[in-house]
Amino acid sequence: MTEAGRFVTFEGGEGVGKSTQLDLLAAHLRARGLEVVTTREPGGTPRAEALRKVLLSGRIAPLGTLAEAALFAAARLDHVQNLIAPALARGAFVLCDRFTDSTRAYQGARGGVAPQQLALLERAAVGALRPDLTIVLDLPPGVGMNRAAERRAARGLRADRFEAEDAVFHEGLRRAFLDIAEQEPERCCVIDAGQPVDAVARAIRQLVEARFLDAQAAAAQ
Amino acid sequence: MTEAGRFVTFEGGEGVGKSTQLDLLAAHLRARGLEVVTTREPGGTPRAEALRKVLLSGRIAPLGTLAEAALFAAARLDHVQNLIAPALARGAFVLCDRFTDSTRAYQGARGGVAPQQLALLERAAVGALRPDLTIVLDLPPGVGMNRAAERRAARGLRADRFEAEDAVFHEGLRRAFLDIAEQEPERCCVIDAGQPVDAVARAIRQLVEARFLDAQAAAAQ
Ligand SMILES: Nc1ncnc2c1ncn2[C@@H]1O[C@H](COP(=O)(O)OP(=O)(O)OP(=O)(O)O)[C@@H](O)[C@H]1O
Ligand SMILES: Nc1ncnc2c1ncn2[C@@H]1O[C@H](COP(=O)(O)OP(=O)(O)OP(=O)(O)O)[C@@H](O)[C@H]1O
Ligand SMILES: [Mg+2]
Ligand SMILES: [Mg+2]
Repeated sequence: MTEAGRFVTFEGGEGVGKSTQLDLLAAHLRARGLEVVTTREPGGTPRAEALRKVLLSGRIAPLGTLAEAALFAAARLDHVQNLIAPALARGAFVLCDRFTDSTRAYQGARGGVAPQQLALLERAAVGALRPDLTIVLDLPPGVGMNRAAERRAARGLRADRFEAEDAVFHEGLRRAFLDIAEQEPERCCVIDAGQPVDAVARAIRQLVEARFLDAQAAAAQ
Repeated sequence: MTEAGRFVTFEGGEGVGKSTQLDLLAAHLRARGLEVVTTREPGGTPRAEALRKVLLSGRIAPLGTLAEAALFAAARLDHVQNLIAPALARGAFVLCDRFTDSTRAYQGARGGVAPQQLALLERAAVGALRPDLTIVLDLPPGVGMNRAAERRAARGLRADRFEAEDAVFHEGLRRAFLDIAEQEPERCCVIDAGQPVDAVARAIRQLVEARFLDAQAAAAQ
């Protein structure tokens, strides 16, 4: 567990509802009077957001997945040092849309970067920092891709570097997130993201309250 | 000191004679019957050579020096794991044209990446590996830039990303290499690269023999 604040990450494939659920949890925690910092990866600081732009543009893909992983690490390093760690140090809840598990799934399990190389880059980026809780939103890839495509159509956007990958890629991605959750059951909770938005949000709230707030209340008694 | 082989790096600004001297030392050691592996950074393995191409093309520069440093780290990680470490493990002399000190000087001292961030990336790339000896070739930048320009003209090449930087940059670079050498006097030897090629080569040979071969001969007696 982190020093003072709580670090919660949202993981899963495209269109599973990470951003939707992160916003709903943030609103719920704020309504309880807690300081909440919401952020996303890649990104979160000016330097990391600049890297996000090129990473999602596809301009880095020709350099290979190791280069991609290194740039994700550079962005994360800046993000952790300048935003996440300071917020946790002052006791905030930090909710982050994707984090290290996405790198393990996309560049590792799917991109073929050796686990040992990824682990070295991950350590450079995050040091000893680990999420206190990782919510893995799970959905058959077809459903998520359709949701993401509908949302893009509504906003007139094109598919980014990763959305443009094929069905086999996205099925493998789902498997990769489930494998991570199996390997680290203390940290990760898998939630069925095929339920209606409200039901997913309720499940997440219960998880967070049981894990952090009830314990806090009990300790305060 | 590394496990079995000897790891010697050549550092210094543009056109100081690194490649020239590396080749001369390699020939000398080979004539003594030693296994010598010569390599360069960025590069040395297929993946790292691919990264070299984009790093020197200037296409990465707009992403900032932290991104550059991360890509150097990715290239170095591959290079160390797949070429340098195996060669050292079987007892070879590995002579490398630029290594971590160039990243500290170019992306750190000159590029403004925070020393702490560079140290994290360096650790990811090289782990506990350190050169047994680093030869810092020192020259007033004007002289080195002229040498490099003449060589380019002779081959019809254009200045790369770093050669194209200005005189202030290159003067700062020289200072950065001298500072590193001052901070790590056990590892680094500064050699006046303004001498004729033969004189520099002789100085390097004497250094390497005193440090590695005489000691080996003494130990074998
Ligand atoms: N439980 C749900 N049921 C149906 N639709 C949903 C559900 N959750 C989210 N959506 C819709 O699916 C789309 C994708 O949701 P969202 O943007 O939250 O996913 P995401 O995981 O953040 O996607 P991305 O990986 O593209 O960032 C949105 O249009 C959203 O309104
Ligand atoms: N001691 C010397 N005196 C005069 N000219 C030299 C000397 N050493 C090298 N040169 C010449 O200077 C040029 C640059 O040398 P070299 O390529 O070895 O430098 P470098 O440090 O490897 O440069 P770069 O940083 O561009 O790779 C070459 O044309 C080389 O022949
Ligand atoms: Mg999202
Ligand atoms: Mg050279």
